[in-house]
Amino acid sequence: MEPRPAAPRPRLCDSLGADQTPSASTLNAARAEARPAGRRAPAVAAVLPAGGSGERMGVPTPKQFCPVLERPLISYTLQALERVCWIKDIVVAVTGENMEAMKGIIQKYQHQRISLVEAGVTRHRSIFNGLKALAGDQPDSKLSKPEVVIIHDAVRPFVEEDVLLKVVTAAKEYGCSDYDLEFGTECLQLALKYGHIKAKLVEGSPDLWKVTYKRDLYAAESIIKERISQHICLVMDTKDENHVGHRLEEVLKDELNHVKVTSRLPCHTGRDLDQIMSEQCYSYVCVNVMTSDFEEIRKLVDMLEESNLSILYPVVVISVYFLDYKSVPFDQKMENLMQIREYAKEVKKRNILLCGLLIYYPQDEHKLQESLRQGATIIATLIKERNSGLVGQLLVA
Amino acid sequence: MEPRPAAPRPRLCDSLGADQTPSASTLNAARAEARPAGRRAPAVAAVLPAGGSGERMGVPTPKQFCPVLERPLISYTLQALERVCWIKDIVVAVTGENMEAMKGIIQKYQHQRISLVEAGVTRHRSIFNGLKALAGDQPDSKLSKPEVVIIHDAVRPFVEEDVLLKVVTAAKEYGCSDYDLEFGTECLQLALKYGHIKAKLVEGSPDLWKVTYKRDLYAAESIIKERISQHICLVMDTKDENHVGHRLEEVLKDELNHVKVTSRLPCHTGRDLDQIMSEQCYSYVCVNVMTSDFEEIRKLVDMLEESNLSILYPVVVISVYFLDYKSVPFDQKMENLMQIREYAKEVKKRNILLCGLLIYYPQDEHKLQESLRQGATIIATLIKERNSGLVGQLLVA
Repeated sequence: MEPRPAAPRPRLCDSLGADQTPSASTLNAARAEARPAGRRAPAVAAVLPAGGSGERMGVPTPKQFCPVLERPLISYTLQALERVCWIKDIVVAVTGENMEAMKGIIQKYQHQRISLVEAGVTRHRSIFNGLKALAGDQPDSKLSKPEVVIIHDAVRPFVEEDVLLKVVTAAKEYGCSDYDLEFGTECLQLALKYGHIKAKLVEGSPDLWKVTYKRDLYAAESIIKERISQHICLVMDTKDENHVGHRLEEVLKDELNHVKVTSRLPCHTGRDLDQIMSEQCYSYVCVNVMTSDFEEIRKLVDMLEESNLSILYPVVVISVYFLDYKSVPFDQKMENLMQIREYAKEVKKRNILLCGLLIYYPQDEHKLQESLRQGATIIATLIKERNSGLVGQLLVA
Repeated sequence: MEPRPAAPRPRLCDSLGADQTPSASTLNAARAEARPAGRRAPAVAAVLPAGGSGERMGVPTPKQFCPVLERPLISYTLQALERVCWIKDIVVAVTGENMEAMKGIIQKYQHQRISLVEAGVTRHRSIFNGLKALAGDQPDSKLSKPEVVIIHDAVRPFVEEDVLLKVVTAAKEYGCSDYDLEFGTECLQLALKYGHIKAKLVEGSPDLWKVTYKRDLYAAESIIKERISQHICLVMDTKDENHVGHRLEEVLKDELNHVKVTSRLPCHTGRDLDQIMSEQCYSYVCVNVMTSDFEEIRKLVDMLEESNLSILYPVVVISVYFLDYKSVPFDQKMENLMQIREYAKEVKKRNILLCGLLIYYPQDEHKLQESLRQGATIIATLIKERNSGLVGQLLVA
């Protein structure tokens, strides 16, 4: 789409008249409790100005393209908007030189409902170009004309549905002509003070901040790592509740009391694990009780690959073996190490981070407890850090 | 010291008369290039209000006491001020319930020039109590009356000397009666607009931000980790430049091109390593060529302990062994593993994080290069993450 900066500015809320009384709460089909009957949801689209150069960041890459867990920041923002089913179209304005890179991002991370337009020389020009694409008067446009357009910064990745809903509600109620998620910035203050227009400050969450400096990228990465590490699934091939594998589960629950720890039978039972994956669990601990080969791990990795989970986030898989140090020859375990290294290298290409963990299994009850605790610490570290540099390692507790 | 909130407010800059013409640039003895001759430096003190409860953080611990790399945030701020030799006294205002904890922090991290006063019910009351302690009219006070007092938030750990210098210069020039490092906040705006007093906005650095939310703690931790990982010292017991240890050095320099990598002979030569430690290098890679025991590592750890380096930051030590997999029996290496685990547990108490790294040494040139690169990746990961959960592990490249 060719931008025409000289064209007249479209009004964003021009079809939000009082007679139509769209209710923002009807927008959210998933939240039945807040849905009044018989109201029509307005068509909503989003425009993301993403033409910035990011000079404050101190790095050559514009901040919206900076990697966070090896994925560009803008992809997280797109993901946050995509998740909201009532946003019908998302228009991203990028500079000509970043157009191909942006297309690559959309393809690689399988983003949906995205259209690209060329950014203007200023943020406002970029927004204007995005709005023009949505105006419905372009002969080649496949986009439908929305009633409300949300303008959202490409560098605010943590926007939640309820905040977007509040904005759309406010757009309806206050009829603002240029609504923006930059809460509390001088723009809104000026509008309120001098513009004689109706405007409203919508309460956001502290997570809705703008990634501006390098430290914000660090913070974003830590927040994302924390979010995807809130659920650990133990895959265990025994129902024997006295087995040491179940004791590891208890210790994990004890040490990681802010994390949900669930256990499931192995992959051949199928359904259970499918469900865990659909709940977006990104951390798996495969406790090998009956076998010491890689069959279970291979099945789990295949299922993960089928689930597409690792397209957006690195998935951690830890293969745990209990080792009776005195009775098992170490060379044999070493064979395993070499196997896991090669295999881990292979699955890393699919964004799955595989490590091994040997838990030393002494007869002494006190020492066993210590081994289990150290095992839990190592598992917690690998899941929290999610660092690809340690892939294929065999750690010992 | 007992706070008396009803006492009259001391004037901060009352001894900064024009006749005394103190030059802030003379404050900084270390920066000879900016020192005009024949001027006297004013006595400078700092007051840190640290009585806040940190409710925005969403955690029960007040933010100034939240751990960053296992050390309370306020200790980093104290460290930043202590480093500035021309700040003679640092007065911290803490609530009664945190007084003992604060004393513990000062003792554990060996902070100097610190006095404690009780915080007031508001930030301004806390500042007032700090100023009173500096006013020189307290019979039991050992503090000398300063000419300039810098008020600095306990939760801004990254303040640099040059910014503090600008503030002191501005205090002299503009004679502000209540100078604050909260640049650009509504306080200064109000002062400029309504106060009819002289005030100046001093340019800070982006790093001078205030730790407010949990994400700021994440950012602070990442910034600190990055700062202390900028220098890696390789300790190598061979001068043979064709040795594979030197090839590891080359690969490290190549892969970590933003990090300074230096190599030194082992500890028995002494002086060289002393110097590296005094330059505050927090990452050591000990390449064991001639020996396969822990002697070198023990010597290095002893030197580190003597240097007190690990009081403030965790020091990473990686013990590297080159392994000809075909010729060395693995059990023997395993003995090493068990040794390193026990020893690592012991030195962890001294905040030294020790890991082992076996680099597989194949005859094949291409594979060797790959092993070295993987070794460098593992080294980089361990140094960057500085995570105590992996202490004592023997990693394989």
